[in-house]
Amino acid sequence: MQGSIRRDPVSHRWVMFAPEKAQTIVRPSQEKNGHSTGGRCPFCPGNEEATPHEILRYNHFPHLNAGWSLRIFPARNPLLRIEEDPRSRGRGLFDTMQRIGAHEVVVETPRHSGYFDDFSPEEVRDILRAWRDRLADLQGDRRFKYLTVCKNRGREAGGTIDHHYSEIIAFPFIPPAIETRLTHAAEYYAFHRRCVFCDMIAQELEDKERIVRENDEFVAFCPYASRFPFEVWIAPKRHLLHFSETPYEILLSLAQIYRSVMRRIRHALDAPAYNIIICSGPVNYDDFAKNPFQFFHWHLEIIPRVFGMNAIALHGNYINPTLPEEAATFLRKKGEEVR
Amino acid sequence: MQGSIRRDPVSHRWVMFAPEKAQTIVRPSQEKNGHSTGGRCPFCPGNEEATPHEILRYNHFPHLNAGWSLRIFPARNPLLRIEEDPRSRGRGLFDTMQRIGAHEVVVETPRHSGYFDDFSPEEVRDILRAWRDRLADLQGDRRFKYLTVCKNRGREAGGTIDHHYSEIIAFPFIPPAIETRLTHAAEYYAFHRRCVFCDMIAQELEDKERIVRENDEFVAFCPYASRFPFEVWIAPKRHLLHFSETPYEILLSLAQIYRSVMRRIRHALDAPAYNIIICSGPVNYDDFAKNPFQFFHWHLEIIPRVFGMNAIALHGNYINPTLPEEAATFLRKKGEEVR
Repeated sequence: MQGSIRRDPVSHRWVMFAPEKAQTIVRPSQEKNGHSTGGRCPFCPGNEEATPHEILRYNHFPHLNAGWSLRIFPARNPLLRIEEDPRSRGRGLFDTMQRIGAHEVVVETPRHSGYFDDFSPEEVRDILRAWRDRLADLQGDRRFKYLTVCKNRGREAGGTIDHHYSEIIAFPFIPPAIETRLTHAAEYYAFHRRCVFCDMIAQELEDKERIVRENDEFVAFCPYASRFPFEVWIAPKRHLLHFSETPYEILLSLAQIYRSVMRRIRHALDAPAYNIIICSGPVNYDDFAKNPFQFFHWHLEIIPRVFGMNAIALHGNYINPTLPEEAATFLRKKGEEVR
Repeated sequence: MQGSIRRDPVSHRWVMFAPEKAQTIVRPSQEKNGHSTGGRCPFCPGNEEATPHEILRYNHFPHLNAGWSLRIFPARNPLLRIEEDPRSRGRGLFDTMQRIGAHEVVVETPRHSGYFDDFSPEEVRDILRAWRDRLADLQGDRRFKYLTVCKNRGREAGGTIDHHYSEIIAFPFIPPAIETRLTHAAEYYAFHRRCVFCDMIAQELEDKERIVRENDEFVAFCPYASRFPFEVWIAPKRHLLHFSETPYEILLSLAQIYRSVMRRIRHALDAPAYNIIICSGPVNYDDFAKNPFQFFHWHLEIIPRVFGMNAIALHGNYINPTLPEEAATFLRKKGEEVR
């Protein structure tokens, strides 16, 4: 596999280099016309042979008449791959590693189009259950350090296909934005002996003014220092480190609140593009001095795209299709041509 | 002044809330038509009364026939203002402070349009000199913790006016991305007793393959772990903490390399939109255990916008026009309407 993951010696940020994504470099004004599935959606029933071999398939809603209700398979053009070596190498200040990890696609429904809140609560529960089970499975690979679920819905949010789909990604490092939260959550725990997320949820429930909805097990709120307009977090009221530890019996309760928030966002903001991210605790953290079990707490972040804000940076991660050597070479040559 | 700066209890990130920017919330598809100066550019000669009172004016190039060659004035709708109280207040977990700081606009030339490399090296030197002198002046206000210069050129990069302009911003906190670099640069210095930037520049000069251009005093390179395609950094070869310490006599040398890189980017990428950021050391850092003089090193970052990447996050800062209480209230109401 081409490309690599490189670490910046100053910020310690890992950057993923994916040369195969260079074709998506376009002038922003051309972007709108760049997405098309050629009239034949690879995620629709009947086109199953257009996708890689399935990892998981549900067929729970026979009235959908598709032979399946949800499918998961490896990404055709994965950002990270399971068949790589996790060791990093250094040369002077510069560290590099292979693009080790996992990248799976979840086709959330056989229906080609529609709003998320058209799904029944039971269908949404199935999506959450599939996420949960895939994360629990990937957690067993000790080369992975952080697992997440992302959804990019709509072109402005980075979505490339109209069909509802989400992505499961396993990283061989902890993304910088998560690392920062871990550090501060650990400091908080060291002093207070309490989870900062549990305390934040308690204060939000007491303040009430930022709560969007709650039920017995979950609360949805616009966080106090929201980074984006109409950003909503959904978190379990009980302390849970990993999304994969969420008991099956409360997934329907999560589905109800998630679906309700998505319906509100659709109506409030005229069906905006949006991003969904699951922020869960790190996995295989035996290289950490402290076990994050006591102080990290999973939550689901919903970011409507109403302010021209960009999503790739949400985790503090960057995906770069161009090696800097190539950029420098190209720029050096251009300088000679126009001298 | 409405709005506030709030700190997230988990990430420790300060988020600036600017309700007056709510008018810029648009569906992304409408954005292209959102910018206009009504046919009358407020930065052009003859319209000086359309801008606030000048802080600085040069008139070094009489052939431009404008009565001035560069002007600086406070922003008409500032993100941060000098007339506020720098103290933060807390309620439970949630910290807040007023929008204290400074926000100035640099009109870089009297010409309305044209490419940056149409400027003579002497004109570019004047821009750098004006930046330098304003930063040196603002540094004297002990309420400010971090000073930067930004330029958003082109609509896709967040530019709102066609005329060449840049912005000088003084923050009452250190932006998260700079804080992270400071932490790691301090660790590096503690072990090696050398500046990590000096070492990185030395390795780039040795490796050669990422160098775009160099002269006696400065080097322009595509950094090893570039976050964006064709990202270029320009740094002084000598160790300098603050941009404002750059000796006047080497500013022409910086102007030459900056102009040359911008010309290459224009020709290589078909005149893309771009962002410019000056990353300089923190100021008034008496609340730090360590003096960053030894381990931080200013540099200028050039980010062409060829990949749909967003600029507001470049510093790790976010600007949010909507208070989460308002967002939650709105979403709560919408939920009732569509129940």
